[in-house]
Amino acid sequence: MTENKILQIPYGTRDVLPGEARAKRVVEDKIAANFLAWGYDEVETPTFEYLDTFSLGGTGVTQESMKFLDRNNRTLVLRSDMTTPLARMVATRLDVKQYVKRLCYIANIFRYEETQAGRQCEFCQAGVELMGAKEPMADAEVLALAITSLQAAGLTDFTVSVGHAAFLKGLLEEAKLSEEKKEEVKELVLAHNAVGLEGLVKSLKLKPELKDLFSSFFFLQGHVKMLKDLTKVIKNKQSLAALKNLLDIYALAKAYGVEKYLTFDLSLIRNFDYYTGMVFEAYTPNIGFNICGGGRYDTMMKAFGQNAPATGFAMGIDRIILARRRLGTITKESSWDYFVAWKKSKQKEALVQAAKLRAKGKTVKVATHELKKADAQIRAKENNCRTLLFLE
Amino acid sequence: MTENKILQIPYGTRDVLPGEARAKRVVEDKIAANFLAWGYDEVETPTFEYLDTFSLGGTGVTQESMKFLDRNNRTLVLRSDMTTPLARMVATRLDVKQYVKRLCYIANIFRYEETQAGRQCEFCQAGVELMGAKEPMADAEVLALAITSLQAAGLTDFTVSVGHAAFLKGLLEEAKLSEEKKEEVKELVLAHNAVGLEGLVKSLKLKPELKDLFSSFFFLQGHVKMLKDLTKVIKNKQSLAALKNLLDIYALAKAYGVEKYLTFDLSLIRNFDYYTGMVFEAYTPNIGFNICGGGRYDTMMKAFGQNAPATGFAMGIDRIILARRRLGTITKESSWDYFVAWKKSKQKEALVQAAKLRAKGKTVKVATHELKKADAQIRAKENNCRTLLFLE
Repeated sequence: MTENKILQIPYGTRDVLPGEARAKRVVEDKIAANFLAWGYDEVETPTFEYLDTFSLGGTGVTQESMKFLDRNNRTLVLRSDMTTPLARMVATRLDVKQYVKRLCYIANIFRYEETQAGRQCEFCQAGVELMGAKEPMADAEVLALAITSLQAAGLTDFTVSVGHAAFLKGLLEEAKLSEEKKEEVKELVLAHNAVGLEGLVKSLKLKPELKDLFSSFFFLQGHVKMLKDLTKVIKNKQSLAALKNLLDIYALAKAYGVEKYLTFDLSLIRNFDYYTGMVFEAYTPNIGFNICGGGRYDTMMKAFGQNAPATGFAMGIDRIILARRRLGTITKESSWDYFVAWKKSKQKEALVQAAKLRAKGKTVKVATHELKKADAQIRAKENNCRTLLFLE
Repeated sequence: MTENKILQIPYGTRDVLPGEARAKRVVEDKIAANFLAWGYDEVETPTFEYLDTFSLGGTGVTQESMKFLDRNNRTLVLRSDMTTPLARMVATRLDVKQYVKRLCYIANIFRYEETQAGRQCEFCQAGVELMGAKEPMADAEVLALAITSLQAAGLTDFTVSVGHAAFLKGLLEEAKLSEEKKEEVKELVLAHNAVGLEGLVKSLKLKPELKDLFSSFFFLQGHVKMLKDLTKVIKNKQSLAALKNLLDIYALAKAYGVEKYLTFDLSLIRNFDYYTGMVFEAYTPNIGFNICGGGRYDTMMKAFGQNAPATGFAMGIDRIILARRRLGTITKESSWDYFVAWKKSKQKEALVQAAKLRAKGKTVKVATHELKKADAQIRAKENNCRTLLFLE
């Protein structure tokens, strides 16, 4: 047992040091307060669930899952997302058919990942799920809630890229591709592999309009005008409905006053297979990953015995804090109002004074032993206390 | 794969349902604010650490630890307490020799346990560690901080039982018992086994005063007078110093104005071997377990390469909430200010009005589809919204 092994922490994990955790709590509380203002009820689920539960959630159990055995040799998984546990909870404990459910959470998530800045094997997510509503109102709500929550978290400079899972699905149906070719297209789109997609499309027998569309697929980005223009070009019902759905959502987002953050990207299809409608991701200039992502998943709840439409998102707390740190709008906050130092005869008086200051809402550190005034001044500074109260 | 296995949650874990989690966040934030007021800096550590790290902490790795292997076949442990990770963090990231460190946390802890009300395999603890100070001022501070934190969490009716690890140690030295017999006495005291201790003491060759003391060991409970009386009876230096230490701590706690919560119990020695000085536990009448426990552990930090005295405590958030629920002073808080319903022509107006209400600090749910007024009234009630705003 080397000292190294004792003092190391596991790969992909980190300590949140003094000052950082305080700032993190402030950010989390602001997001939680915004979720509350929008009518979302906070919940918690266990840190781990049975493998069977996660196998059923659309997100699946993958190489990234952290698994272990309980005492009865049943396989447990540290939760690799919160959508599956929430679906499990709603299915067993709440009746979603009765009326719309608005749930939110702030929780740590676990995945083996190649770690980079802002990407860890253990990370903190805040998110919401709106279950039981299929209308554009629901999608516009989670979109606007994501945007106002990023604002509440202290970010101002970000964009939200919006796509639709059914747009590409409709094109693939229209193109009458084999399942295998469909999968190939999807993977190339997911990987943002323009050259690969171009090559594949050339090899396929397609109507010229479709060939053009697939060839320019990664250019299907822009504002609401791009969507409107596309409605004149697109022939198949599913893709047209997707465009109309996005236009409806946009109109509602405008009523919320959040439209300036929105941009459309029809090549955005997100990692998970389970999305069925609108999908979105938020980006901020100085972070190379999305800081928030979500969308509509209408088929997943069925696996848990309650057939209900659902839409939601998750945002990365650590990434948001990293973005704010890089912007310099968040600093290690680790300062206090008072340092109370004392001469022996005033030891108890120091405690009385400290209690009084705290009752007035001040933050106070008390010296644990007698100090000379000169030393007390040094200690007050070392302790990041703004004011020295010296009792002698 | 039965439905049962899919929908179950692992043994000893629980969902924190709508309303409960919101109340929990309020309690946590009040405790965190009190920790802050006393100069404690919040930190977070990974949910799991290397087995080697936990083996080194005085709390040890036991049958109760939840272990698993990482991808390189190194054994990880879901943290079974926070003191060990904090010691590891301080040893590697902070310099405790420089000056006193005040750290706090709110974190989930994992242990295989026989589950009963308020005792789970995954549970939430809030706690502090004050490192680098050996004086009674430090012990009085954590004691007063524990009491004011329980008050901040909404409890009024509780008692704090205070003991001292060195009191029994001194008696055992004085009695010149074998290591084996010492261990036997300690286990009987830990188990609160009066009959067993009585029997063992009878079989030992001891001075009559010591025999009397051990025989009445579980009666060494009471207020400060009991401690003072004992100073006249106790002969060995270590036990006498322990009593004097408790009297010093009591005098300081009095200056903090928290003495009415204190009672002394010299048979209180706590589970862990690592305590070296004052130990304490807090109880509230309607919960069968302690809701808070802690004490001084001066030797543990040495194992992590920084030889520093330390004192601290951890309180059980779930137990505190359970106590308050049983008292009826906390309820499932799941109500909102407004339910905004609308006729089609006012759909967008509804979103504008909702945004205005939220800007005024109101909590608002918006109907996701058009409703008739009569239905809107029912929905508002189902959604626990106090006021219906109906736009037509």
